[in-house]
Parts: sequence; structure tokens; C-alpha cells
Amino acid sequence: MKKFSSFILAMLFLSTLIIYPADSGFGKDFAGAKNVILLIGDGFGPSHFRAAQLYSQKILKQELNMVNAMNNGHTAYLINDTADSTVTESAAAAGQIATGQKMYARSLSIAEDGKTPVKTILEMAKEKGLSVGLVTTSGITDATPGGFSAHVPSRYDEEKIAEQQLALGIDVLMGGRKQFFLPKTAKDIDEKNKEKDNDKKDDGKRKDGRNLMLEARNNGYTVVETSKGLNLAPANSKILGLFNMANMSSEIDRAATLEPSLAEMTEKALQVLSKNKNGFFAMIEGGRIDHASHRNDTAAMIHEVLAFDKAIGAALNFAKNNPDTLIIVTSDHETGGFAMIGNGKTNKEYIGMDFEAVSKVTASFESILKKIKKNPTPENVKAIVKKYMSIELTDEEANIVATDSIKKMDPYNYTYEYLHSLAFVLRTYFRAGWTGATHTAEPIYLYGTGPGSEMLKGLIHNTDLFTIMKTALNLK
Amino acid sequence: MKKFSSFILAMLFLSTLIIYPADSGFGKDFAGAKNVILLIGDGFGPSHFRAAQLYSQKILKQELNMVNAMNNGHTAYLINDTADSTVTESAAAAGQIATGQKMYARSLSIAEDGKTPVKTILEMAKEKGLSVGLVTTSGITDATPGGFSAHVPSRYDEEKIAEQQLALGIDVLMGGRKQFFLPKTAKDIDEKNKEKDNDKKDDGKRKDGRNLMLEARNNGYTVVETSKGLNLAPANSKILGLFNMANMSSEIDRAATLEPSLAEMTEKALQVLSKNKNGFFAMIEGGRIDHASHRNDTAAMIHEVLAFDKAIGAALNFAKNNPDTLIIVTSDHETGGFAMIGNGKTNKEYIGMDFEAVSKVTASFESILKKIKKNPTPENVKAIVKKYMSIELTDEEANIVATDSIKKMDPYNYTYEYLHSLAFVLRTYFRAGWTGATHTAEPIYLYGTGPGSEMLKGLIHNTDLFTIMKTALNLK
Repeated sequence: MKKFSSFILAMLFLSTLIIYPADSGFGKDFAGAKNVILLIGDGFGPSHFRAAQLYSQKILKQELNMVNAMNNGHTAYLINDTADSTVTESAAAAGQIATGQKMYARSLSIAEDGKTPVKTILEMAKEKGLSVGLVTTSGITDATPGGFSAHVPSRYDEEKIAEQQLALGIDVLMGGRKQFFLPKTAKDIDEKNKEKDNDKKDDGKRKDGRNLMLEARNNGYTVVETSKGLNLAPANSKILGLFNMANMSSEIDRAATLEPSLAEMTEKALQVLSKNKNGFFAMIEGGRIDHASHRNDTAAMIHEVLAFDKAIGAALNFAKNNPDTLIIVTSDHETGGFAMIGNGKTNKEYIGMDFEAVSKVTASFESILKKIKKNPTPENVKAIVKKYMSIELTDEEANIVATDSIKKMDPYNYTYEYLHSLAFVLRTYFRAGWTGATHTAEPIYLYGTGPGSEMLKGLIHNTDLFTIMKTALNLK
Repeated sequence: MKKFSSFILAMLFLSTLIIYPADSGFGKDFAGAKNVILLIGDGFGPSHFRAAQLYSQKILKQELNMVNAMNNGHTAYLINDTADSTVTESAAAAGQIATGQKMYARSLSIAEDGKTPVKTILEMAKEKGLSVGLVTTSGITDATPGGFSAHVPSRYDEEKIAEQQLALGIDVLMGGRKQFFLPKTAKDIDEKNKEKDNDKKDDGKRKDGRNLMLEARNNGYTVVETSKGLNLAPANSKILGLFNMANMSSEIDRAATLEPSLAEMTEKALQVLSKNKNGFFAMIEGGRIDHASHRNDTAAMIHEVLAFDKAIGAALNFAKNNPDTLIIVTSDHETGGFAMIGNGKTNKEYIGMDFEAVSKVTASFESILKKIKKNPTPENVKAIVKKYMSIELTDEEANIVATDSIKKMDPYNYTYEYLHSLAFVLRTYFRAGWTGATHTAEPIYLYGTGPGSEMLKGLIHNTDLFTIMKTALNLK
């Protein structure tokens, strides 16, 4: 029966058209959506979805919220070429979705001249009196949230991005990279975060000595740094939630931290934003699907997708009580060229991915890398893989990792030391592989529910997504 | 404006519903489609589509017909797990689409007991008096056409598949693998076909000594073996077109043969099938996208997709004059884990795939393999790649191919001698790579136009595609 729900929606929508005949499709008389929740899985491709769906069905014995959104909404294909490439870089992708204009790699919502700001959907929503929010598991100053809230020629100017986000008065800002809000002298509150890739990241980074967290508090923000703090924050105040000096922890490593989940952040964000009677625009990002995928880390990737899915569940729950909400789920690009391959370690054909094996992994590649680097011998590689993955590598496989054979063969597409070689030897155990470390040009998913989601059909360029949201919110 | 065409379709459809209220969605009063044209790209994933679209835009300066079908129709995502795997084998995928039941690897439309035939959509259409046809660039006895027209425990029993196809009286049968229609003594009519992978394939294969081509002619079929013969065949007779002893030639190699294109076969098939006032069911397969993808042959794959796209164009043209035609475009599965990667031979990020380089390739891996095998030295590899691809490999790259380094590292997922190693070294030139030689579990595209295409939405399992076609054709 679910197949025919589009007709019910279409009929409801058509009745709107009949009462208010539109002059050009969704014209000025389109009733529109009060709220837009845009959920972006960074680096999230169709195979990432399918692996997480199968993992959820087989290991967790439950269906994903994404499937609910697909089947009760509208489904389209999204392409994402930029002003300078068929394979998009993240800042360009975010800027294109946010502004409707083609962008250049690494610039954030800046025109072709390299300096003129291009107004974003978030800025337009704010001008019209809506509340606006950005939530991510990556850095709040990273490319995706940055594309909606800042205008800088280089996405790496994250100190400036933080300034612009607060100057704009964005109602909800949650994520990682607290370091760009704090002066160089500041230290992390959570000692456990010292276990990151790069210890140097763990201190404040601002060269101007400003403490933007303090400034935000003085400007009326509730500033929180832990899951508990977020939970206690009032819903009638702006929130700045910064939960890690660097990116927030990978979901697979998060249990040992003080950080909230993406779903917890999403729920709080929607509580705060929905206080505004004019409605709101929220961008919620599963930001670290991309990071796991760059590292070719199958298990961590699946856990990131599952965390993203719970955030989608929170958005769908909100929309149940607020049916004037357009929910859009998409991605900026696929990362890694992830694929569930046919065969394993024998010549038995088409046995499918081994989700049991994936379920035994207890740490991200990000945290394992540090342990390999300390002593990159085949023996240590074997011990680490045994301990954190319950897999006994052969001598030959351990040697491929220890000598980093894969990276040596194509260093520009395999950028992380040891990890691509590790992923290569794990592929026959997990029966899943990766084409490289970089983004790909694979078309991605675009689907959604609620008023305006009827526009999500066919093959859509990510610049058109801006127009769809603008139309749904009746923005000029 | 194109975004709103679904509403026009929905309105048209709703008017049908209002006049003939249906008891359960598309119930018995649904006017339905007179004809169904199901187009299957074998091994055809979203990235295959996107590479062909970008190639077509950048090199051929034209848009694909597929984009027209997506934007003027309905778009869904298709998943394809089988009775025994999350990564489908081809016979199981075909049987699932054809019968609506989950199948086991390598069996063709046979129930779980390994012997009971399960009726296919083609058989049901034929029983109701519709004409039926199968067209492919692979063998007509291969898994995809076989799944619609035969019931055998093993897809490799192709002599029996050929018998069953003719016994069923299928109105149009076109493709390759003539060898399963001819006794062992028969020779190929086209000497050029001797250039195949495996010379042994080039003679008749039937151990029972029957000549099914002669039998078909005696039973009223027009039997053709060349493009010219196909062109001259009357439209008011059944057609058996067998254009190669083995599979039909790869599109990139076809110019030197006597074989028709997939679009030419499609046009003729639709002429013949549309003579029936009751309507028809046709399955048209771009059968060799899969073969190019198993070999990780980027250029040949793109040419196969372009040939498949022209067949889609022929179907869309037919539907213009016959709007009671449901056109469905999909795939059985993705093959190869193909991805357009970010980087090339330098550290410049995100420069995108090099379609100019791909456009210079003049031969398939299938034909190149024979030349490498004759003399697998680095020098010969360099000379062959220079001649047929205009690429000058480095000594190190030529050595990776000559020593087949990639296959040696994972022999069960890299099955073709030399070719995966060749694809690996070409990846930095084309800026496109492959995860392996096998099928993957990537969700695939499902879209279409015409009456009933409204059912193509959300996340659909390939067994449900059977129900959609059955509903559209009002079959019991």
C-alpha cells in the first residue's frame, strides 16, 4: 500500500493547486513549508546506505528511518559537479546547495571573483525572521556548515568562519572544532580527547587571542561542552554547543567520551528552533561518514551512517507533530568508492558482505592508526587487528599493511598511511572494498517528506536543491 | 518546469481513479498499460550512468535519453538481495524481476526445491495474448533473457534454454550465442568473430545435433544473422536474430563486424511486437555493460552504456506515438564497484575524470587481453597500451601489468588475468577506478515513464518490480 501514498500526497497537493492556481509551478501562491530540515550525510553514497541498512536488518534486527522517509516521501537522484570539476570538493558542494550557484573548490559561498559573498538559504531564512541552526559531528567550522553560514575564499580559514557564524547570530550551532573559538592558550576540557590522530589539534587555535565562547555567552548564547550540558540547556535560548577541540569523536569510539550523539543534538536543536512561530531552517550533518570513508574504514562508516539515521528519525518524529515541515535527506558527495563486493577469501561466488565480522570491530581506524604508527611491524599489525577487530591476519596480509603496499602504488588517491593497505587486506574478511581515499562523482540520494517534497524527483543538480528549499519556504 | 510534469501525470492518473475508483490502489479497474518495455542495463550502476552522461556531455556534446526518462517520469531506488546472498548473481536477479520470488544463485526461475518452474511475467503476458520479445547484446541464452523465458536449475544449461525459448514461441529473440542453437559441426558465418577471448566458443555447441535455427525457420520464424538481414526482415513475422556465435561484440569493437546495434535491434523488435493489438511485453538488455565492468574496462563500459542509452531513445520514441506504453529502465546489479575518483597522477585534488583520455581508446580490454597474453612482457604491455589507448605507461606501471600484481593480491575478487592490473595502472590516467571484478550490492536505479510508472518511487526490492509490471498489464 505504501506505494500509493504519493497519490494521497499528490491529491492533497493538487487540492492546494485547485484552490490557489499557481502561475508557474510552485508559484507565489504555494502554501509552502513552515520549516525545512536539511539532513546531509557527508560522503554518504548509495552503497553506504545499503551497507548500513543490511547491517541494521541483520545485526540490530531493525529497519532504518531512512527507508521510512524514502517510502513515505519522494525519491530523486542528485548530481554535484562544480565550477571547476566533475568530482566535487566539500566546500564547493556545500556552497552549491546553500546558494544555488556553482562554486570553486575550497571556497565557501564566494562568487567566481574569489571575493563577493553569495547569499545562502540560511541567511535568506534568517532575514525573513525564521530561526536557523547548524548541527554536525564534524567541526562546526568545517566545509558543510561553513557553506551555509560563512563567506571565505578558503575553507581552511576556520577562525574567520567561527567569527562569521556568531556575528550572523545563528540560533543553534553544534559540533566540534572548539579550537577555532578559543585562544591558543586554551586546553581541552576532556583529557580523553587527547587520543586523537593529531595531538596538536587539541589546544585552542585562535591567533587573535579572542575567546568566542565567552563572547557568545555574553551575547545571550547558552554555551555547552558536554552531552549533559546540552541536556540541561534551556530551549528558549540560542545554543552554542562545542563538544570537542577537534572533530567530534567517531560514533564507534564515542561511548568513552562526554559527547552527545547526533540524534541528541538534533532533538535539542529542533526544540530550540521550533520556538519561533515563523518557522526555521536547520542543516543537520552526519559529518564523519566522510572521514571514515576517506580512511576506508568500513565499520566506523556504518556506525556513522546509523548515527545519521537516528538523527533522521528525530527529524521524522518532529515532523509527525509538525506536518508543515519539509525534510530533505541527501549528501554532498560520495567518498571512497565504497562497494560491497562479491567474494571473500575463497572462490565461493556471491556470498555477500560479512556483517557479523563488521559487528566485532570495536575501534575506528582513526584510533587504530596511532597504535600502528607507534610500531609498524607485521607482528604489531596482527596483534592490533586481532584485538580491535577479532580478525587473524595472515603473515602476508600483515606485511602488506606494515609495508603500506597499497599507498605506495597510488599515493595521490591513497592518502592515509597504513589505513588503505589495512582496508585492502580486510576487504576479503568484510567482503567490502574501496576504490580510493578521495571523493567520487557518484550520483547520490535525494529524498524527503512533507510540503514541497514533491519537487524531489528525477535527476537534480545540487544547485537546484537551493531553489527547491527557497520555493518551499517562500523566500525571495 | 520539468519538475512539475509528474503532477500533470498524477492529475491524469487521478482523473482515472475518480472515474474508476480502485478498490486497492491499482486495483482491477486501473486502465493500465497496453505495452511494457523493460530495459535492463546488466551490471549498470549509478556511477556507470554518471560517467556515460559526463562523457556524452563533454565529448559528444549531447544529453542522454536516460535523463529525459528520469525527468519526465518517476525515479526510485532498487535493491536486489536474493534467497542466498546480499550480492546477487545474474540469474537470480533476472528470475526475481521476472517472477517476483526470491531466487538462488545460478538457477533460472526455479523455486527453492530446485525443480519447480515459477511462471514469469513474459509467460503470463503471452498467456493473455500479448506478444513477447527478448533482446540483448549478450547471449540470448544468457542469464537475463533466460530468467524471463526458461526454467533450468543451472543457467549454464544454455542448450536447454534455447530449446525452451523457441518452444515457448517467443515472438522476438535477438542477441548472441548462436552456438547454443547449432550442432557441434556448425561454423560461424563471420570470420572476424574469431577474434574473441576464447576461440573454442566459435563453433556450434549442441550435443544433440539439432539445428534450432533451421527448426525455428520451419516454425515460421524469420531467422537473421546480420545487421543487414535484420533490416530486411518483415515486421509481420516472428524473428530469431542471432548475430554472433559467442556474445555480440563489444560496442567499442562493433564497427568492424556485421552486427546490428542494440538500438537497431530494439527498433525492429518494437515494430514486430506492436503488430499485436493486445499489446506486448519486451525485455531489452544492455547485456555487455556487465562484461566490460567485470573486466574493469572503463572505456568499453562507457560505450556499452551509450549503446544502451540509444536503445532507451528508441523505446521513448516508440512511446511518443504509443502513450499506452510503460517504459521501465533499471539494472540487475552493479558490477565492479566503479567510481570516478578525485585525483590523477599528481597531488592536485579533485580534478575529475579525464574523458578526453577515455575517448582515445579504440579497443576493448577483451580484445587487448589476447594481445597481452601472446607476449606478457612490460615492453609489449607498453606498446599495446600506446597503440590502443594513446597512453604511455611508465616502466613501473607496465611491470605491474606484466606481473599481474593486483590479481595476485586478491585472486577471488580479481578474476581476469592482467586486466585488473591494467585497470589499476590506468586509474590515474582516466581518474576512474574499480573495487573488484565481481557484482556489488550497490542499490541501482529504477525509473520510467508512461502509465503505471507512478508506482516507481521509494526504495523497491526487485521482486516488487514483477508486481508493478503485472499490475500495469492487468495480468492475473
